[in-house]
Amino acid sequence: MNLKLVLKVLGRILLIESASLALPLLVALIYGENPLPFLWSIAITALLGLGLSVLPAQKRFFVREGFVAVGLIWMVTCLLGALPFWFSGYFSSFVDCLFESASGFTTTGASILSNIEALPNGILFWRSFTHWMGGMGVLVLATAVLPSMGIRSHYLTQAETPGPVFSKLVPKQAKTSKILYGIYCALTLLEVACLKLAGMPLYDSFIHAFGTAGTGGFSNRNISVGAYNSMAVDMIIAVFIILFSLNFAVYFLLLTRKFREVLHSDELRFFLLAVAGATVLISVNIYPLYSDLVQTFRYAFFQVCSIISTTGFSTTDWSFWPQFSHLVLIMLMFCGACAGSTGGGMKCSRVLILMRSIRREIHHIIHPRSVEVVTLDGKVVEESTVHSVLTFVGCYLLVILSAALIISLDNFSFSVSFSSALTCVSNVGPGLEAVGPAGNFAAFSPLSKLVMSLCMIIGRLEIFPILVLFSRSTWRRA
Amino acid sequence: MNLKLVLKVLGRILLIESASLALPLLVALIYGENPLPFLWSIAITALLGLGLSVLPAQKRFFVREGFVAVGLIWMVTCLLGALPFWFSGYFSSFVDCLFESASGFTTTGASILSNIEALPNGILFWRSFTHWMGGMGVLVLATAVLPSMGIRSHYLTQAETPGPVFSKLVPKQAKTSKILYGIYCALTLLEVACLKLAGMPLYDSFIHAFGTAGTGGFSNRNISVGAYNSMAVDMIIAVFIILFSLNFAVYFLLLTRKFREVLHSDELRFFLLAVAGATVLISVNIYPLYSDLVQTFRYAFFQVCSIISTTGFSTTDWSFWPQFSHLVLIMLMFCGACAGSTGGGMKCSRVLILMRSIRREIHHIIHPRSVEVVTLDGKVVEESTVHSVLTFVGCYLLVILSAALIISLDNFSFSVSFSSALTCVSNVGPGLEAVGPAGNFAAFSPLSKLVMSLCMIIGRLEIFPILVLFSRSTWRRA
Repeated sequence: MNLKLVLKVLGRILLIESASLALPLLVALIYGENPLPFLWSIAITALLGLGLSVLPAQKRFFVREGFVAVGLIWMVTCLLGALPFWFSGYFSSFVDCLFESASGFTTTGASILSNIEALPNGILFWRSFTHWMGGMGVLVLATAVLPSMGIRSHYLTQAETPGPVFSKLVPKQAKTSKILYGIYCALTLLEVACLKLAGMPLYDSFIHAFGTAGTGGFSNRNISVGAYNSMAVDMIIAVFIILFSLNFAVYFLLLTRKFREVLHSDELRFFLLAVAGATVLISVNIYPLYSDLVQTFRYAFFQVCSIISTTGFSTTDWSFWPQFSHLVLIMLMFCGACAGSTGGGMKCSRVLILMRSIRREIHHIIHPRSVEVVTLDGKVVEESTVHSVLTFVGCYLLVILSAALIISLDNFSFSVSFSSALTCVSNVGPGLEAVGPAGNFAAFSPLSKLVMSLCMIIGRLEIFPILVLFSRSTWRRA
Repeated sequence: MNLKLVLKVLGRILLIESASLALPLLVALIYGENPLPFLWSIAITALLGLGLSVLPAQKRFFVREGFVAVGLIWMVTCLLGALPFWFSGYFSSFVDCLFESASGFTTTGASILSNIEALPNGILFWRSFTHWMGGMGVLVLATAVLPSMGIRSHYLTQAETPGPVFSKLVPKQAKTSKILYGIYCALTLLEVACLKLAGMPLYDSFIHAFGTAGTGGFSNRNISVGAYNSMAVDMIIAVFIILFSLNFAVYFLLLTRKFREVLHSDELRFFLLAVAGATVLISVNIYPLYSDLVQTFRYAFFQVCSIISTTGFSTTDWSFWPQFSHLVLIMLMFCGACAGSTGGGMKCSRVLILMRSIRREIHHIIHPRSVEVVTLDGKVVEESTVHSVLTFVGCYLLVILSAALIISLDNFSFSVSFSSALTCVSNVGPGLEAVGPAGNFAAFSPLSKLVMSLCMIIGRLEIFPILVLFSRSTWRRA
């Protein structure tokens, strides 16, 4: 294990984090707020980053090192990202700050705050900006880092995935990444402009664009997007949520005018069908509450988009909706967005591969001599990938149940323990009952908050990198 | 599809069912109760059975026919098994009768009855006897029928599984089956004797032995085994529950004096470890409630055995236990007993294979060039079996969530909808909150009850036979 190089890479990322703290500092200065929380955080993060990045290290970088680096980077970034919250004095414990920071960077959007509007603009800006950076980090991870490390899973089917080893990919990756970052930034700015045009204040527009881009869900208003009570705002955010939930490979294809391939993407069709189906089911279920077709559709469509994308914004307190709607939303939490997007969950492509594996199993039973393959977008999915996907699904359930087991020590109902674990692993944000859209995570014990923070990171990194980090054989001498 | 032969086989099974109704009839006569419900049921079942079994049919019997036969037999058996309940007049609708019958034959033990003790002895005898028959049916299915149809899953690792096609196995299977039935009957009678010695009335001893043998859980007392408040009864039932949860291949091995192989059974060790671990966790969790080590252990051990075996008896209303204990029990419900036993759930061997697949995946990430196999009992598990097991786990989750979705139309809490679906698919019996050990399933809508009945059969047959039955390609002309 070339730990020195891992730490050196970590150091560089911390320098980026330190630099990014200049933005909320600027916001704080503009609004005449106390700049000290940011100055302290910048100093600590920069010093640590500098110290680590000047470490002398050999350039040997293998898959093992890559995974350890990814796991460490996310954990330490979340840890140091909690500093501004801590120094601000608005949080009652460092664990709360860590929870909020992890929830931000992992683009979960679960919060321990009960009165968000009491916080200064600078702090809330940082809180939402972590979503935006986390979303960017996930795109890089899902489209470049993980596939290049040979993790046999299903991240980005159609984009050109670069070379085989992490250290070698940086030059090759450069062009693809630039386009990716460009699209990400352009879409974010477009959303800010649209929201501003729809009448939202500029500051709020940035906050909600960050929350949408990272599919995070932090708002600067206590009742989330519902505070604006504007059809235009709701629809703008819902549409951008969908745009950020799509496999970013789709945008590559659009840029290279491969429209036919976009239309033939199984995952895209599955995702849009799931959105449409869930919207219809919930609309029928909640219609008696609103007795107005437009209102019903507006709330149902927004919430379905918000949950399947694992964003977590809400325009109404859906904990008052009937249980059937809750179950639909819970199923969407499992499913999640498209692979290669900023969204979380198991990902539509994995659900598709699972469903096609089940169909193949049934066919195999009826025709035992048949040899059938699982396909996606008309292409054969390698058996090792199918295998990885199925293992992932089983592992997902195990992680959620294990997390719920520890969380249940706080003695909340099964609905709360289970949905908290699910919403954290899937990076959604709200859960059921006490942790519903109008609730928050303040009441949990520090242990539960730590477990949930870890769950967010586990889910965000699609489980295996963290398991690798904690695996004995990773640290054994070769 | 050779439907005529399928119906002919179904007819013969119905004749057996009709004959087995003589036993509760006898009980009714002994207690001087109305024999008419049984006479009517015997007549209808026998007539239908006779009619079907005299059908002229070709002897062509393939895998497809086997699966359709298995699915149909369980569904029709449950349907006709509901007749005595219906004719008794103690049930308010036929759906309720069907629910109780399906719960019996699938050895689930979930009930819609609120006052069990109000029912006549003959009816309660039939109710529990369906457990015993169901358990027998499952043993035959798991150890002979399904493996012989080439379903690529993990039913009985160590026993000699017979020939490749259903129709050919009967003569070959005869000897194995006889030993199997012998062990099943002997263990049941031994339990009756032990319970009688411990002071339980003979009738009650039969009822609880049937419930234990099938890992069903129907009792003739409202508060289940807790009604006897006897340490001896509790421990006798717990020990027999464990005996019936083991892979029956273990008994073959013991009979052939292969003790070493028994000790090396990974599944057996996993099962016993799970029982011990869960007992310790729950004991620590509930100790403050009882402040007595022996009482604490007694309740914890019994409940762990009862739930992991998917029996569902209770000695205390554990819905008052802290949530952590509930989560432990929920995890045991997913896990279930050993393959090749009368227990339900995903089965320990599948959970083991899932966990080893995850470990392999992690190893593969760290050492990408390594080729590793999944082993069980020191033997390599075929890739196709690993694949089937992983598909099964994903499918299990999908079935539970889909069922919970429909059940949630009744607007019970998520805990209730989810745990009802889980407890039915895993053939356990009790769930959480309203469907807890002191509750029942009476309050659900007829739709939910039908869905739950179907779930019990789906779970009991390990999902795929029912999916095959409902698959379009099964019914398509070759």
